Amino acid sequence: MAGTDRRQKLIMDGPVIILVNPQLGENIGASARAMANFGLAELRLVDPRDGWPNEVARANAAKADHIIDGVQVFDTLEEALADLNFVYATTARQREMLKPVRDPATACATLRQRHGHGERVGILFGRERWGLESVEVALADEIVTFPVNPAFASLNISQAVLLMSYEWMRTGDAELPISEPPSLPARKEDLFGLFDHLEGVLDRENYFRPPHKRATMVENLRNIFQKAELSQQEIHALRGVVATLEGRKTRPRKDRQPPKNDPTPKAAKAAKAAKAPKS
Amino acid sequence: MAGTDRRQKLIMDGPVIILVNPQLGENIGASARAMANFGLAELRLVDPRDGWPNEVARANAAKADHIIDGVQVFDTLEEALADLNFVYATTARQREMLKPVRDPATACATLRQRHGHGERVGILFGRERWGLESVEVALADEIVTFPVNPAFASLNISQAVLLMSYEWMRTGDAELPISEPPSLPARKEDLFGLFDHLEGVLDRENYFRPPHKRATMVENLRNIFQKAELSQQEIHALRGVVATLEGRKTRPRKDRQPPKNDPTPKAAKAAKAAKAPKS
Repeated sequence: MAGTDRRQKLIMDGPVIILVNPQLGENIGASARAMANFGLAELRLVDPRDGWPNEVARANAAKADHIIDGVQVFDTLEEALADLNFVYATTARQREMLKPVRDPATACATLRQRHGHGERVGILFGRERWGLESVEVALADEIVTFPVNPAFASLNISQAVLLMSYEWMRTGDAELPISEPPSLPARKEDLFGLFDHLEGVLDRENYFRPPHKRATMVENLRNIFQKAELSQQEIHALRGVVATLEGRKTRPRKDRQPPKNDPTPKAAKAAKAAKAPKS
Repeated sequence: MAGTDRRQKLIMDGPVIILVNPQLGENIGASARAMANFGLAELRLVDPRDGWPNEVARANAAKADHIIDGVQVFDTLEEALADLNFVYATTARQREMLKPVRDPATACATLRQRHGHGERVGILFGRERWGLESVEVALADEIVTFPVNPAFASLNISQAVLLMSYEWMRTGDAELPISEPPSLPARKEDLFGLFDHLEGVLDRENYFRPPHKRATMVENLRNIFQKAELSQQEIHALRGVVATLEGRKTRPRKDRQPPKNDPTPKAAKAAKAAKAPKS
């Protein structure tokens, strides 16, 4: 549909869109275009199959070059979420997850409100063939599900991006009831730091038994702290708790860095481990 | 995004989608897929550039074969609209037209109402490069316009079809996937048991420093777990975490009873301590 007009002000605002392992440049490009249509600006890719830059993506972005040029690429989802305060994961199906499930309009109203309070917010989209892994959904705060035809629920990624972008734009029109923010949620990297710390101690203490249940147990623990919408101060307190308990045996109290012989963040390792095909 | 389930009932209902002079089979296919996602069924093409059938369209419909198989092709727009009672024309921009202009939600509410009264309704979409001609818009009853970014208003046809299909589904029975309460929160006594356990360990480990801040620190920690609305299972997992960490020094791993030289249950002691008046 025709109608682009470069003389008008280009809206660039709103939540960060994060695509996990996108396979097709066509979908990356169409997502960028959909974002531009509805005034979103920031696109992040986690481990895109065909690398980056991707000329197929640019060709399919229909001149949304400002978005393609600004794409950031990350090796892990944890890194892509690190500076965000509040994140939705999109899923096509209901899951057995201990997280609130919202429809797109409600989700975008929430995002709009938090964004208005100065939070950095994001929306997470899964890969083409099987969406998001549970361990990835576990890194988000809430879930958004589309009201699709139950017998034909397979929504293209760029279509999902479009719907969320559209709802974002729509929530800009309405005057939302503004409430005081409870407290600014911490940045995700602080939360992931807590995960790493706690899981590292529990690994050493052989908490995750039997080993094949480790992924599920990790996910459940993460959900607990995710649900609590921890502030930075609260994360600090909890790390103090873990440090108090572990510090007795495993490390000097003043060294808060991970051991030098293990540069990989444990959270990233756990995510990779969880990506292994399920039996 | 994964999620198609052929065992579920396939919704097939709603307005007829009419594409005028579509040029790309990709867009016809993606439109069919979007329709299927949101329960629409009937697709009509007016003079498609590459004729019909079109295998590119089928390949891009992601198995929405029931829609591709049912496509009707017309030489003129008048013929395509002949049996309909009420039609919207989609446009990207405001036009100088003597017709009401609606947003997608309002338009779909109108369509839903008329459809419910037995009217045959439809939505008209223009060609890729320049949308609908004025003479074509004139054949419709009302206009629907998308709330796009003014400087990047060029919406892909299949994306426009998706948005209208989505709004159609939304105006339906309001059976949106709204979440049940994620899980039953635990009884308070289980929660307090966790507090007692954790605070008892932290007391022994001298976590609460300086002592006059103990009450505030306890309160902050309790708030964290209160906010998380923990289920009984989650409390069980957290108690396992605390037990794992404390068990290393203060008691043998297989003996989960308190040491014999400390007959006072930790919970009771901690509860008493927490009751101390705040400074």
